[in-house]
Amino acid sequence: MTQPAIVAPGTTIDDDLVGRVDAELRRYFARRRPELDAIAPVTAEVTEALTEFVLLGGKRVRPTFAWWGWRGAGGGQEPAGADPVLAAISALELIQANALIHDDLMDDSDTRRGRPTVHVTFTRRHRERGWLGPSERFGAAAAILVGDLALAWADDMFSGADLPEPARRRAHPVWAGMRGDMLGGQFLDVWGQASGDESEETALRVCQFKTAAYTVQRPLLLGATLAGADDALLAAYHRFGADIGVAFQLRDDLLGVYGDPAVTGKPAGDDLREGKRTLLMAHAMRAARERRDPAALEALNEALGNPGLDAPMLDRVRELLETLGATDQVERDIERLTGAALDALAEVPVAEPAATRLPELAHAATRRRY
Amino acid sequence: MTQPAIVAPGTTIDDDLVGRVDAELRRYFARRRPELDAIAPVTAEVTEALTEFVLLGGKRVRPTFAWWGWRGAGGGQEPAGADPVLAAISALELIQANALIHDDLMDDSDTRRGRPTVHVTFTRRHRERGWLGPSERFGAAAAILVGDLALAWADDMFSGADLPEPARRRAHPVWAGMRGDMLGGQFLDVWGQASGDESEETALRVCQFKTAAYTVQRPLLLGATLAGADDALLAAYHRFGADIGVAFQLRDDLLGVYGDPAVTGKPAGDDLREGKRTLLMAHAMRAARERRDPAALEALNEALGNPGLDAPMLDRVRELLETLGATDQVERDIERLTGAALDALAEVPVAEPAATRLPELAHAATRRRY
Repeated sequence: MTQPAIVAPGTTIDDDLVGRVDAELRRYFARRRPELDAIAPVTAEVTEALTEFVLLGGKRVRPTFAWWGWRGAGGGQEPAGADPVLAAISALELIQANALIHDDLMDDSDTRRGRPTVHVTFTRRHRERGWLGPSERFGAAAAILVGDLALAWADDMFSGADLPEPARRRAHPVWAGMRGDMLGGQFLDVWGQASGDESEETALRVCQFKTAAYTVQRPLLLGATLAGADDALLAAYHRFGADIGVAFQLRDDLLGVYGDPAVTGKPAGDDLREGKRTLLMAHAMRAARERRDPAALEALNEALGNPGLDAPMLDRVRELLETLGATDQVERDIERLTGAALDALAEVPVAEPAATRLPELAHAATRRRY
Repeated sequence: MTQPAIVAPGTTIDDDLVGRVDAELRRYFARRRPELDAIAPVTAEVTEALTEFVLLGGKRVRPTFAWWGWRGAGGGQEPAGADPVLAAISALELIQANALIHDDLMDDSDTRRGRPTVHVTFTRRHRERGWLGPSERFGAAAAILVGDLALAWADDMFSGADLPEPARRRAHPVWAGMRGDMLGGQFLDVWGQASGDESEETALRVCQFKTAAYTVQRPLLLGATLAGADDALLAAYHRFGADIGVAFQLRDDLLGVYGDPAVTGKPAGDDLREGKRTLLMAHAMRAARERRDPAALEALNEALGNPGLDAPMLDRVRELLETLGATDQVERDIERLTGAALDALAEVPVAEPAATRLPELAHAATRRRY
């Protein structure tokens, strides 16, 4: 876990971005872990859980958008300028670790990236060791702390990156706003599930803040502000990021219902079991109401948040989503949003190779199978 | 909540430190809240919960130590230099908000600072509104997110303070290390409670990291590094902070058993009910074992982590802590640590008025009744 990163000699950051982000994260963990591990032998369980969570999975979507945001705004690859940027944007993976670890706890999800979630791991450990008190309580406490550590280290990694001071100051508001979007969007999501809000409006707002702003738009703007982008490019990134971000989430919604567990790393239908009020479900519910089809509405409501959802029920939901036109509508939305995003980007000069890579990324993010 | 701070004209920071810290926090909340509140009307519940938690309570212990650390190292009060420092160290109250909000959730405490805890507030709200799913789950999710926001804003407030770049760079490792100490110490505490670790060694380490380092030592060093203190002063603060920090926690342990609920804002005996393995209890358990007094040991173990602990049981524990000599030992430890701390400070030149104020603070922190 802590061996030095192996970077193929002569490989540029552009050519091995995911590998370079991984190397930054590995280096950072190796540097910070001893601090906590020195407190007591057991605290190493916290840093180990975080290290494994971050290094054994993840597509590095946010650092990728940030990097191409930087490159498109004229940021270079030469080590003096690029290495601190690479460190700063790799910190986005630690924010994502906080979001996922705490999200999994709130949703009581068992599996993430094909492995047991953090709270489940610590719950099992407590049970196996025959410790005092409820095992779930210990698991929850550990997951809260591992997630908190991820958030603290995210900031440390970002603000400890050796950036030129003017660049750091420009990027600071973007970084600050991003965590607010993510946490506010997540609260809106939790609130929507609890209050039974079925509106497309709330589903869209969750999508815009919890995913779009935080996954695509802000990372792009982070890279761009680090490079000192002009207002026209920032505005184009803003629109491109908002649209691709929503389309990315819409693809995720479809994968949550149709995805292959072997590819997504999550059980099929988990979004439904957890009661996630996606735009896909909101479309279907509106359609069922418009068509005065109470049976369909009831079947959808029965599936949503039902931990006992089985394969036949899931098949029934899939069928309904199709007959109600929701699946098609989401596919059309993805198409439309991707088109609008590419149009926005085409209106401004974007430096190569980002001008080529960003549209490719947009397609990859919205057409992926995992 | 968001009206502009009223600062008495002519009052110096030294004379009204708590008021000035409150004003910084109030200003910061007023600036940041609109960002989240714009996401959706309901997200205002998150920022409101955090604002109330921070502004309606707290003794501002950490910013106070940080300020006097700064002053003792020659930092001034003139606005150009001092205002950014005041903003940076006020952010410590947001770390503390994260620690307490998440701690209360992990311990399932009902009351904090004389008010319902954050998870209890949101649990009740869910119940009153007749929402879907378990109310406790919603309360927990909200408290996780409010605590996360506190941690995110803590970093934003610290790294957004208009500090000179060399000062920010010097202070960064102190800030980074502090949250690690706090989270690692908290995990050790949770682990100790779960594993039933009764050792004085673990109780002391929890005390050193969860409280001492994070409450006194690191805040002092934060102020000092911002002021560019020399190594001799840093070393003296290091020793002073470690000792006063432990003594502060020992006083807290005593208040947890003997404190007046009307003054502490917490029900009497809550530490026992929550199963907190304090140094006070560790001393008592060792003494009971050394005296081969299984009845005493059993009574202590029965009280620890017992949610049904009532007044007669609490009286019995108090009696045992006295006959076993644990209360006296903790009082002696506080005395000894305070003495050693003051000796360490006396060995180096400390700028006035901090040279006078720091010993006063040491006494206040270790002799307080709340």
